[in-house]
Amino acid sequence: MKSKITVPTLLLDRQKCMKNIQRMVDKATQQNLVLRPHFKTHQSSNIGRWFRQAGVDKITVSSLRMAEYFANDHWLDITVAFPVNLLEIDLINRLAPYVQLNLLVENTESVQFLDRHLRRPVELFIKIDVGTHRTGIAPDAHDAIQKILEKIQASKTMHFAGFLAHAGHTYRARQKETIQEIHEDYLAQMATLKATYVDAFPHLLISVGDTPSCSLMDSFPGVDEIRPGNFVFYDTMQTEIGSCKIEDVAVAMACPVVAVHPERNEVVVYGGGIHFSKDRLIHPDGSEMYGTLVELLPSGWRQPEGPKSYLKSLSQEHGIAKVSTELAQTVKPGDILTFLPVHSCMTADLMKHYQTLDGEYIEMMKYV
Amino acid sequence: MKSKITVPTLLLDRQKCMKNIQRMVDKATQQNLVLRPHFKTHQSSNIGRWFRQAGVDKITVSSLRMAEYFANDHWLDITVAFPVNLLEIDLINRLAPYVQLNLLVENTESVQFLDRHLRRPVELFIKIDVGTHRTGIAPDAHDAIQKILEKIQASKTMHFAGFLAHAGHTYRARQKETIQEIHEDYLAQMATLKATYVDAFPHLLISVGDTPSCSLMDSFPGVDEIRPGNFVFYDTMQTEIGSCKIEDVAVAMACPVVAVHPERNEVVVYGGGIHFSKDRLIHPDGSEMYGTLVELLPSGWRQPEGPKSYLKSLSQEHGIAKVSTELAQTVKPGDILTFLPVHSCMTADLMKHYQTLDGEYIEMMKYV
Repeated sequence: MKSKITVPTLLLDRQKCMKNIQRMVDKATQQNLVLRPHFKTHQSSNIGRWFRQAGVDKITVSSLRMAEYFANDHWLDITVAFPVNLLEIDLINRLAPYVQLNLLVENTESVQFLDRHLRRPVELFIKIDVGTHRTGIAPDAHDAIQKILEKIQASKTMHFAGFLAHAGHTYRARQKETIQEIHEDYLAQMATLKATYVDAFPHLLISVGDTPSCSLMDSFPGVDEIRPGNFVFYDTMQTEIGSCKIEDVAVAMACPVVAVHPERNEVVVYGGGIHFSKDRLIHPDGSEMYGTLVELLPSGWRQPEGPKSYLKSLSQEHGIAKVSTELAQTVKPGDILTFLPVHSCMTADLMKHYQTLDGEYIEMMKYV
Repeated sequence: MKSKITVPTLLLDRQKCMKNIQRMVDKATQQNLVLRPHFKTHQSSNIGRWFRQAGVDKITVSSLRMAEYFANDHWLDITVAFPVNLLEIDLINRLAPYVQLNLLVENTESVQFLDRHLRRPVELFIKIDVGTHRTGIAPDAHDAIQKILEKIQASKTMHFAGFLAHAGHTYRARQKETIQEIHEDYLAQMATLKATYVDAFPHLLISVGDTPSCSLMDSFPGVDEIRPGNFVFYDTMQTEIGSCKIEDVAVAMACPVVAVHPERNEVVVYGGGIHFSKDRLIHPDGSEMYGTLVELLPSGWRQPEGPKSYLKSLSQEHGIAKVSTELAQTVKPGDILTFLPVHSCMTADLMKHYQTLDGEYIEMMKYV
């Protein structure tokens, strides 16, 4: 396989990926939760089918165009976990007749607009801000919630599905205890909401689920569905957070070596910001890292022994790896170095396809 | 035009772009320099033709695949300003018969490999590290340079073109004086090299040229060609460095507004890391910024009066803009906010096409 790689190539270990999928399916089944995985990580109809084979039939996406892509592969129950983009109302109306489309709202203006322009029914979740402060309504903002609910109830095309949250602040955690605290905190917030509105809306759903919580927590009282995404691949960031072991990471970028600087233990690879993305982790000493070196074997990759080698900086197409003295002395231009990305969602989005360890080409959605 | 935008859209002000091109062409002409612009910024055959109309016939690219893309549009003298990727020797051999291909080397291993595998002549530049410490040989490493030159001279398929440098450390500067110092420093290094080797190689070329130096400096003694790229669009980073005025920036990202949080003067837009890239600038207070808000008018955009609004964070598809109280009170979901990107090369690479102010679709190369 190695000999076929001539340019930066995103390798996919299908076995690890399917194991990650099955592990999350099993947890959801045991906890009596609906698993509605977020497909923005892989963006691939092919990988989507691996989920389908594992029994998944509801999905999450991050854009309406992504909903369309997966609808074309016969996914019929899709949540667009992003505040609804009113400018794409035509696409919403094209999808709604044949897909159960679940949209997110957090203000009355959007609900009013949808009421005027929707031609088919959709489900609406109210987005709740459980502490990330990116999007959503505070869970105690009952006036704002009540106004939205009234507008939904008055409409013929909209149905209130429930409350949806994403505890993205777990990504800042580096200890299981911190994630446990965040988890209990958002569960309590959602439980209070459910208690407040369940009489009026007996079927309301509580939807949560970031990858750190869903990977590390075992109990989700009061929750109906979980929506993790990144777990399908994991990455160096999730390893740092503690969501996975480094052996669970299912994607790695193979990069041609183009220059070696043994005098500073650095290797220059063809593989830069347009391949990895500029997402980074900060070492305790303040230095940046953009990927973790692994050793590529015919059967996959493994973490090398000894001190970690890593990508210390990225330009548009260059990556500079800080490596061990031994590696700096032996690696040559024309060799391949392989790195686990910091953020697999962003890397996959940039690379636009995968190559399995068997050399199979796995396609992804294209925006253009 | 505004009404046609429904998703994040990279707008191109063709007039500003052509003015940026003409300004650099004029400077090169006045200084008797060859302008060999770096096309990695725009990656578009269409925009390439605007350069051709301005009299440019030599170009720089950052990958062999990019060389192939532009060769297909009849560019016949192409420098790949990246340490040669030996794994793409087949592509080199496909291009070399009909393109003057100028490649970069910095070690004897690569030169030996090329000697064994090249089927047609190519030009080789030796990459010199003038202080950026990313790639290249130190200008005083005469043993290393001499060994490479001997191998090139012994070869039938390789010809020594000269010394090439990229003073990327100008990007860290924020004052013209600092750029002037770096400029004089690398010119002195290259002049010493030229003096040392010109007797043996009377036609050797000195090739330099980052956008800050080429935009701000007027004199390039001893230099034969300049290779700036970013100037075709400029961006917020170049505005910060001082390479351009904000009015010169020729691309801007139009983003649908999806949520408004007046209580914290924030607007959530559809436009995230997969559109802008995660390249950022750091404010004096340590906070990050990912784009500068401009006001979109039918004829283009302009900087609004008053305090600057900017993108303070990006997720995969979300952008969070910190805006003025006035804007936070008036903007609504379904509106469009427009931002100058921090790093236009990375943003263009992600967006994969442009839309001119007249609504014309301008295509770019695709890797997949």
